[in-house]
Amino acid sequence: MSLEDEILVRIRPTAEETARIDAVAKHLVDFVRSYMDEHGIDAELKLVGSYSKGTYLANPDLDLFIMFPPETPRKELVDVGLKIGEDVLHGTRMYAEHPYTSAVFEGVDVDLVPNIHIKDTSHLETAVDRTPFHTEYLLSHIKEGQADQIRLLKKFMKGVGTYGAEPNVRGFSGYLCEILVLRYGSFRKVLEAAAEEWHPGIQIELEKAHVRLTAPIVFYDPVDGKRNVASAVHEDTFNRFIAASKAYLAHPDERFFFPRPRQPLPESEILSRTGSGLFRLLAISLGKPDTADDNIYAQVWKSQYALENKFRRFGFEVFRAVHGVSDGRVTLLFMLAHDTLTDSMLREGPSADGKNAQAFLDKWNEAGIVRPFIRDGKWYAVVPRQYTSAEDMIRKEIAQAGVGKNVPLDSLKVLDHDTAVKECDRLLLSELLDPREAWEN
Amino acid sequence: MSLEDEILVRIRPTAEETARIDAVAKHLVDFVRSYMDEHGIDAELKLVGSYSKGTYLANPDLDLFIMFPPETPRKELVDVGLKIGEDVLHGTRMYAEHPYTSAVFEGVDVDLVPNIHIKDTSHLETAVDRTPFHTEYLLSHIKEGQADQIRLLKKFMKGVGTYGAEPNVRGFSGYLCEILVLRYGSFRKVLEAAAEEWHPGIQIELEKAHVRLTAPIVFYDPVDGKRNVASAVHEDTFNRFIAASKAYLAHPDERFFFPRPRQPLPESEILSRTGSGLFRLLAISLGKPDTADDNIYAQVWKSQYALENKFRRFGFEVFRAVHGVSDGRVTLLFMLAHDTLTDSMLREGPSADGKNAQAFLDKWNEAGIVRPFIRDGKWYAVVPRQYTSAEDMIRKEIAQAGVGKNVPLDSLKVLDHDTAVKECDRLLLSELLDPREAWEN
Repeated sequence: MSLEDEILVRIRPTAEETARIDAVAKHLVDFVRSYMDEHGIDAELKLVGSYSKGTYLANPDLDLFIMFPPETPRKELVDVGLKIGEDVLHGTRMYAEHPYTSAVFEGVDVDLVPNIHIKDTSHLETAVDRTPFHTEYLLSHIKEGQADQIRLLKKFMKGVGTYGAEPNVRGFSGYLCEILVLRYGSFRKVLEAAAEEWHPGIQIELEKAHVRLTAPIVFYDPVDGKRNVASAVHEDTFNRFIAASKAYLAHPDERFFFPRPRQPLPESEILSRTGSGLFRLLAISLGKPDTADDNIYAQVWKSQYALENKFRRFGFEVFRAVHGVSDGRVTLLFMLAHDTLTDSMLREGPSADGKNAQAFLDKWNEAGIVRPFIRDGKWYAVVPRQYTSAEDMIRKEIAQAGVGKNVPLDSLKVLDHDTAVKECDRLLLSELLDPREAWEN
Repeated sequence: MSLEDEILVRIRPTAEETARIDAVAKHLVDFVRSYMDEHGIDAELKLVGSYSKGTYLANPDLDLFIMFPPETPRKELVDVGLKIGEDVLHGTRMYAEHPYTSAVFEGVDVDLVPNIHIKDTSHLETAVDRTPFHTEYLLSHIKEGQADQIRLLKKFMKGVGTYGAEPNVRGFSGYLCEILVLRYGSFRKVLEAAAEEWHPGIQIELEKAHVRLTAPIVFYDPVDGKRNVASAVHEDTFNRFIAASKAYLAHPDERFFFPRPRQPLPESEILSRTGSGLFRLLAISLGKPDTADDNIYAQVWKSQYALENKFRRFGFEVFRAVHGVSDGRVTLLFMLAHDTLTDSMLREGPSADGKNAQAFLDKWNEAGIVRPFIRDGKWYAVVPRQYTSAEDMIRKEIAQAGVGKNVPLDSLKVLDHDTAVKECDRLLLSELLDPREAWEN
């Protein structure tokens, strides 16, 4: 039995699991239907998502759409739709791009989503309007055996850390995995394409798209050619999937599907690596942004990039940065070439023929360590550095750095090298010091 | 009397000087003419250069061309021409682009240059062939009073250090000064154009040119539109002239024409500036290249740039560099942000989707201080630095740095910060530490 067949045995839902979820789905639809009939609500019910497509791994959520007639005003359908969710499921109102109800029904997570039953994709208004079309597209195009291929791809993506469009993964959604298999034919063929053909800017389509989009990877939605299904995929995640595909094809291993949890480095190892004098750590600890979970991660990434830019702008070379969220705080951990610098730096001025040269001369003729001189068509001067300490710089500049807007700046703590080694989470320190991929554990 | 009129009084040749050089020129031509008549040599004599154009400052050289008929074989004219120089002037044979004789005649430096008397500029073969046409062009286009304007511009260019096409100045030739005044009308108008309109890539022409050339400044030769008269002008000299023009127009001063000699900084000042810990000096001393003077400077500049590149490539930031030639040795003096670096550096690897990724991974998974990770689409690793000492780096890399080819590498001496402060010429140290322009002394 091939490795992939072995994996499938482990990840394909068992007959029992399938029977159970089928039963729950049927009960759910019947239950909602009878409530609606009782209350004279005119709408169709439609199961969408991975359960409806038969591409789920285990314990799928159920996504039930309440499809109101096209002429229904949006406010009415939202009011009525949410009320159904509350009355029937005693669920919680949620507001993503679109309001819906989230609940647990017979032990299964259920999302109940009111939307408009549009007839074709030329009238798409919101992201949820597309979802039923995704289900239809997949069901009408999937070939014998491809559901298992999709399962393998999803599990692989999960294993190597590239699954999910949320901001903490910035990766490949379930639907994207499905249409990748439709496009290339099988799990292996997707990996082969990634390993051999993909490059930043790759354009993929199943149906002819009539616009051109740019991103690390563009997969034109077959039901809406103006949309990039892969828009959430970050360049780094894209490249991680390529690297994982190459590594797997060279040496297939179950660890790509079932990664072993990362073990923190032993404390002695952390001490010897951080005590080498080869680099300096600086940790920035902040309160967790007061916002939805997805948003937290978006803001943490934004903050990390913004702070990396500040470091570089002020002459502190960043070797590498990682972040972690735990215990109500966010920790951004930076590995710097230096955390203090000498007092002087080369300051590039305006071009020598330009209008602004005089201001530069006036300023640095007096204040320069070496007054202005011309090199390669520009004025330069050796000037005193604004910050010689990275910690100092961060404290003074963080308010103008462009970190996520819900990041509470009054909660700032800056941990110098020794404090960071002592106080930071050992797993986070290990991640910084030893950037192995999930499949390498 | 305006400043420029005052300057003119000081730089315009006196009536006595003019009478004296006119007399020498006449004697010279008569003397050579009579030798040629005696020996039956069929050639015309023509004075060219700044004397012939009446644009000289003082004590001009005399450039006398012996113009042989077009059918004369080049070998014959060279043999005959050089023999005239030897017999008449007892001069020295010189070989620039073209052989000629150099001598002193009645106290005046004379170059006697054999060439072909071509009828028009479509038959130009060598640079000297153009010279008589330059004289003719200038004489037929110069307007009343412009000779003095040219004198002002030449003296200004000398004063600010931008005069001369030789490799140690990399500046504006006398002919270029002449045609700049023809083009813009006067000394001031040339400076105004430079201050207000010139930018790198400026294209100037007097006669329609039918090719396009690129350089910091292109002035199409009016007698040969395929040639850039300003090809020797380096970007830095170009910008120095712009800066000088702006400074002069804002505050006219005789110092632009008669700069005071630069005074070295007092020793105490040099010690306090170099002892500040704000930068590190490194001097590289080499034997003088065994070649013609012009060539020496070309090779010294080339060496300076080549070594600056080496420093940067290995992570040593160069704030500024200067060079000096004296006592048979060349000294290249560098101001560095650091002359030693930590053991680690960020190494950029191939793009993550590329074919070469595996080699990078294989190498640095083992040898890296931090093994490879993906950032912004590329592999990176934190790796040990090849050189942590700038001195070490120079000793090992200079042979592959691409310094001038006649630079004797076995004569290399590297002077560290303290030794450079002690042993380098004080004027050179001052030039590095205090990069004032000539007119600022």
